[in-house]
Amino acid sequence: MTPFRVALTGVAGALLLAASPLAAQAPALIPPQGLAAMASEAGRYPLFAQEVARARAEVDAAMKRPIDVPVPRDPGGGVTHEQHKRNYKIIRGAGLLFRITGERRYADHARDMLLAYARLYPGLGPHPARANQNAGRLFWQSLNDSVWLVEAIQGYDAIRGALTPAERKTIEDGVFRPMARFLSDGSPHVFNRIHNHATWANAGVGMTGYVLGDKDLVEKALLGLDKSGKAGFLRQLDLLFSPDGYYAEGPYYQRYALQPFVVFASAIQANDPGRKIFEYRDGIVLKAVTTAIQMTHGGYFFPINDAMPDKSLKTEELYYGVAVAYGATRDPGLLSIAQWQGRTVLTPDGLAVARDLAAGKAKPFPFASKLFRDGPEGDQGALAILRAGLDADDQVLVAKNTSQGMGHGHFDKLHWLLYDQGQPIVTDYGAARFLNIEAKDGGRYLPENDSWAQQTIAHNTLVVDETSHFDAKLKTAEKVAPTQLAFNGEGPTRWSVAEVAGAYKGVRMRRALAQVDVEGLAQPLVVDVMKASSDAAHRYDLPLHYAGHLIETGFDLQSNVTTRPVLGKANGYQHLWVDATGRPAVDEGTVTWLNHGRFYTYRMLPPKGAEVILAESGANDPRFNLRREPVVIQRVDGARDATFVSLLEPHGRYDAAAETTVGSKSGIAGLSHARAGAADIVTIRTKAGRTVVLAFADNTAAGVAHNAQVGGRTLEWTGPVGRFDQ
Amino acid sequence: MTPFRVALTGVAGALLLAASPLAAQAPALIPPQGLAAMASEAGRYPLFAQEVARARAEVDAAMKRPIDVPVPRDPGGGVTHEQHKRNYKIIRGAGLLFRITGERRYADHARDMLLAYARLYPGLGPHPARANQNAGRLFWQSLNDSVWLVEAIQGYDAIRGALTPAERKTIEDGVFRPMARFLSDGSPHVFNRIHNHATWANAGVGMTGYVLGDKDLVEKALLGLDKSGKAGFLRQLDLLFSPDGYYAEGPYYQRYALQPFVVFASAIQANDPGRKIFEYRDGIVLKAVTTAIQMTHGGYFFPINDAMPDKSLKTEELYYGVAVAYGATRDPGLLSIAQWQGRTVLTPDGLAVARDLAAGKAKPFPFASKLFRDGPEGDQGALAILRAGLDADDQVLVAKNTSQGMGHGHFDKLHWLLYDQGQPIVTDYGAARFLNIEAKDGGRYLPENDSWAQQTIAHNTLVVDETSHFDAKLKTAEKVAPTQLAFNGEGPTRWSVAEVAGAYKGVRMRRALAQVDVEGLAQPLVVDVMKASSDAAHRYDLPLHYAGHLIETGFDLQSNVTTRPVLGKANGYQHLWVDATGRPAVDEGTVTWLNHGRFYTYRMLPPKGAEVILAESGANDPRFNLRREPVVIQRVDGARDATFVSLLEPHGRYDAAAETTVGSKSGIAGLSHARAGAADIVTIRTKAGRTVVLAFADNTAAGVAHNAQVGGRTLEWTGPVGRFDQ
Repeated sequence: MTPFRVALTGVAGALLLAASPLAAQAPALIPPQGLAAMASEAGRYPLFAQEVARARAEVDAAMKRPIDVPVPRDPGGGVTHEQHKRNYKIIRGAGLLFRITGERRYADHARDMLLAYARLYPGLGPHPARANQNAGRLFWQSLNDSVWLVEAIQGYDAIRGALTPAERKTIEDGVFRPMARFLSDGSPHVFNRIHNHATWANAGVGMTGYVLGDKDLVEKALLGLDKSGKAGFLRQLDLLFSPDGYYAEGPYYQRYALQPFVVFASAIQANDPGRKIFEYRDGIVLKAVTTAIQMTHGGYFFPINDAMPDKSLKTEELYYGVAVAYGATRDPGLLSIAQWQGRTVLTPDGLAVARDLAAGKAKPFPFASKLFRDGPEGDQGALAILRAGLDADDQVLVAKNTSQGMGHGHFDKLHWLLYDQGQPIVTDYGAARFLNIEAKDGGRYLPENDSWAQQTIAHNTLVVDETSHFDAKLKTAEKVAPTQLAFNGEGPTRWSVAEVAGAYKGVRMRRALAQVDVEGLAQPLVVDVMKASSDAAHRYDLPLHYAGHLIETGFDLQSNVTTRPVLGKANGYQHLWVDATGRPAVDEGTVTWLNHGRFYTYRMLPPKGAEVILAESGANDPRFNLRREPVVIQRVDGARDATFVSLLEPHGRYDAAAETTVGSKSGIAGLSHARAGAADIVTIRTKAGRTVVLAFADNTAAGVAHNAQVGGRTLEWTGPVGRFDQ
Repeated sequence: MTPFRVALTGVAGALLLAASPLAAQAPALIPPQGLAAMASEAGRYPLFAQEVARARAEVDAAMKRPIDVPVPRDPGGGVTHEQHKRNYKIIRGAGLLFRITGERRYADHARDMLLAYARLYPGLGPHPARANQNAGRLFWQSLNDSVWLVEAIQGYDAIRGALTPAERKTIEDGVFRPMARFLSDGSPHVFNRIHNHATWANAGVGMTGYVLGDKDLVEKALLGLDKSGKAGFLRQLDLLFSPDGYYAEGPYYQRYALQPFVVFASAIQANDPGRKIFEYRDGIVLKAVTTAIQMTHGGYFFPINDAMPDKSLKTEELYYGVAVAYGATRDPGLLSIAQWQGRTVLTPDGLAVARDLAAGKAKPFPFASKLFRDGPEGDQGALAILRAGLDADDQVLVAKNTSQGMGHGHFDKLHWLLYDQGQPIVTDYGAARFLNIEAKDGGRYLPENDSWAQQTIAHNTLVVDETSHFDAKLKTAEKVAPTQLAFNGEGPTRWSVAEVAGAYKGVRMRRALAQVDVEGLAQPLVVDVMKASSDAAHRYDLPLHYAGHLIETGFDLQSNVTTRPVLGKANGYQHLWVDATGRPAVDEGTVTWLNHGRFYTYRMLPPKGAEVILAESGANDPRFNLRREPVVIQRVDGARDATFVSLLEPHGRYDAAAETTVGSKSGIAGLSHARAGAADIVTIRTKAGRTVVLAFADNTAAGVAHNAQVGGRTLEWTGPVGRFDQ
């Protein structure tokens, strides 16, 4: 059980160094001009110089310890697992540092590590801690072996020209060829899948093919084991992203999936420029990068599905993504992202980023309202993003009208989020997980991820009869996607209209969300029209999870101040404490909260007889696994059809420094709803005397003319949404 | 009821401008060189230029509206109240802008406003919205009238030289003389008090005396109405601050009180340099400023007593304080505070701050461990601050061993707080109040300020028999202060030892808090030895309010997952929901939480048989007035003497960007306590094999030699605390 420790320094010293000049065996993965520039300009641009220094610190520290290539033993997080992860970083880092600094000791160290692997690897069988058929050899799952290969082959590529033929043969025969064989022909069930794990395998095998000059490996990586194109990297580019570069699992996993795509694409471009890989499928690789960036607010990814809400663009995958995309496009907007990241990668693309940043070429990234269609054909719903402006502080509305997104998807069709002033205002819980924190189930997904985070009630969308969409069954959910009926991201009235049928048997749901600029109001209003129609009577619950301290409600509350009941028994309801309930009359249904010095009033116009529930997560949580966060729920019982009209209004300012408060009261005088001319007519009256009427037509086709009689007045408009200001 | 609106522009235009050169009537409050420098260098230094621009924007906007000097009508927050507040700012701003820019229109505007006041003021009686005997005339309380005078006299001083004798006479006879008379001779019950309200009155009257050349007013302001020195500004300097510059109400109110002290001192210095006001009582005015700054973490004041926790050095009072202190001392540490504030004031001192900041003279402010004695004689307890270092991220421990601090004081003798990484870790609730937010009781203190925030259980100190210190009675509490027995702010073991008798009948409490640097640990440990002794049996509760997400406990919990009981009936206990309870065995009593990527393990060694309660604030709070925050309570029943030894250990790191976690488990192997040789011996064993023994002697006198036999070993030390590392 003792790890296989090898102190190779003496042996290495005795090996003969290759006498041939470096250029004789130029690296395959880095073009020669890039290589020369990295060496000559490494210290010239702060961002790159700092990455070199960071890599030096890491590799130098590793070189002070004996080389440690242990016999595989532990599962994820264990000692041998972590050591092999550290090793591939050091092999890659040392190789690149050799090329950048010219210091031979780095090449020697990478070589000695790889020689140790060449001794270890041939003797390995399936990993002793394997959990399923996808066992690796160095790691408990082959995914990690693929990552090892992607990283280590880059390090080897950098030093290969400085090795003796004998060393090369030892390393290639001992590690790279057998590993590439194992991850391709030896693992067809992984390699030929359309899945993120396969992408890593394809990338590792294909890059190894380029470095070893093995065309067979490259073709298998690109086209699948039978080279038919039914599997392999290109097929993954066809199927894993939508035509708009959206990855079905959502931004958190899109980020995670990105790295093998961009790294392998970069290698293809260097070795096979005729393939025009960056133009493939209308530039899908680059779209995947820019779409990921668009799905952020203040640099943080929208935490839909199983996401950690603290995940930002400051992540290894996006350092690569931004550098590769910049290398391919020289889009100056990417430079401002790199600036915010404060990081780049040790590649010629990273150097270009650092060089052009230093030259002041950065421009703001063109954040904008966007509709990202989901599904390989773009017909599986969409993620709709409405932005009030380009500043980090501007309001962003996200309508989640996407497909289920596989096992990490949440049961939250037509869910929405709101950001303002860099803060989440209408929130998504994300995943119930403490990543890598051992005391919390080893850092894995917690039981509350199933019992709470994935359930519908944990989101801002309609719940029918206290059950989740599709009964929280993945297979059923995968079959049905919402339909994005209309979208407009420009002008003073921006909107998304979507619907879904099948989330509940016999219930059709349609939601219009509009972001409405109103003269005299500093921030846009958000109008939400959520409609359900059914032949049978149901209990309808419409939750809104918000962030902030509750300031006041417009209606009387029955408060549970000494005993808080739990809202329900299952489907997430068991996790909600009921603080208070009330039955607001018309124009009383408001809840106001304070977040970062700004007030938000949520104004509800639920169906008649509705109850409003103020609740908080945290019940039935004996291990304190949940964050405790507030929610407002509009509830109506025994209804067939139901329309919930709501208005979210940011207003006023509390200034802690100056101890002043302005506009703490809502500026809205009234909200009303009517049906007229096959449309939902929403009327907003402000206290300043302005009236804004929005008409949401049932027929959402573009260019269709509509009219409606409202209060003796005829409204006429064209297209899905009309607006009338008075 | 119509406000008294005066459009004086025409009248003003017709008035003859004083033909005499400005220098003929130099301002009294600003020395001539300072005046010349402000005029010639106003645009030269960014910080000052920006203040001039800010003042211009404000005054120019006001000048576009008709002058509005309404007949007083409304209480605080009302229309006429806010208008008179705006007016004094404009009078002062316009006056100074006239001096800085030389633009006559500013002098005219200030003059016209003052002429309007000269018409209004003589006809005013007690304010119609007065609430008690301290009614003002312009405002509902005379405090606001004093503030008006302090501000407006500065504006008048700046323009006086540019007015005709007739204008001067009108303004002085109409406003300044009668107002100064009203606030001094006319309000002896305010003017002669030793109280913050009196300071404002003294300052306004004294400054008016200097401007009008009225020695009588100046002497009354300095020495009280009878000029005996038993009241007045100098007496306030004797009594309101401790010898270390600590103000009994705590930092939040110290900040508030500061402005009239520094502004009037500055005027005294300009007119009466022979008084050496900045040297008075060993430099108490400047100490008050620097002590206020020392009582911050990351720029935010420690929120002890009735404080808003979001209050920082970015506040008008501290812009003045820093500028005046810099003018008097040229201490370059103050420049870095001004830099953090990003603001200064329109005075020659403010100009000097901006000039020297621009010249790069700023040095880090010398934050350090400090003992600030409380009480005029320094014998009413103390605030002890222990700092691990100078960086904003370094750990800060605050031991609140101060006196009650009047009506805004909390019943929390020997309470403590901890900050780390710029975050509160062991917290103080502060005040239950939403300042100026109308929906929350008009922004006043909420009922929960009495029922929760001031109660002992809301703090991190011992509660006996579920009642608060001094039964939460202010008069009783004012009579007893803790005794600071020992303090050491230097070296690797820093400590505070204090005791109090009388918070509970027959119970004596002593607490030692130590901040302990240990080799191999990145952050200091905090050791807490809280002892109670009594002749009768009691229930002892020791709460620790913490900020962060609970990760794990070292002991089994009985969790209240479907019904959370309320902890008690009164004295703050009615506001706590009980999440879970447990009875940890020795070395099991740990609670670990996560805050900003760092773990904190609180390790408890309570008396035998103790129960641990995990609770959260928010019960019996029908209006959502409370923040919901967690607390751990150690409880022992039926004990006479009780010793609670606790250890707080920061450890590890969770990195969301890199998705890595290290050191999530405590590095402590054991904590034990023994009595030996008239001392409490606390032994800490780390998992790395190190042992640290701390000996807290009963006799805390300096220089006394102690010894104790522990585990067959003799420990010998001198002074209150000994330390032995193995």
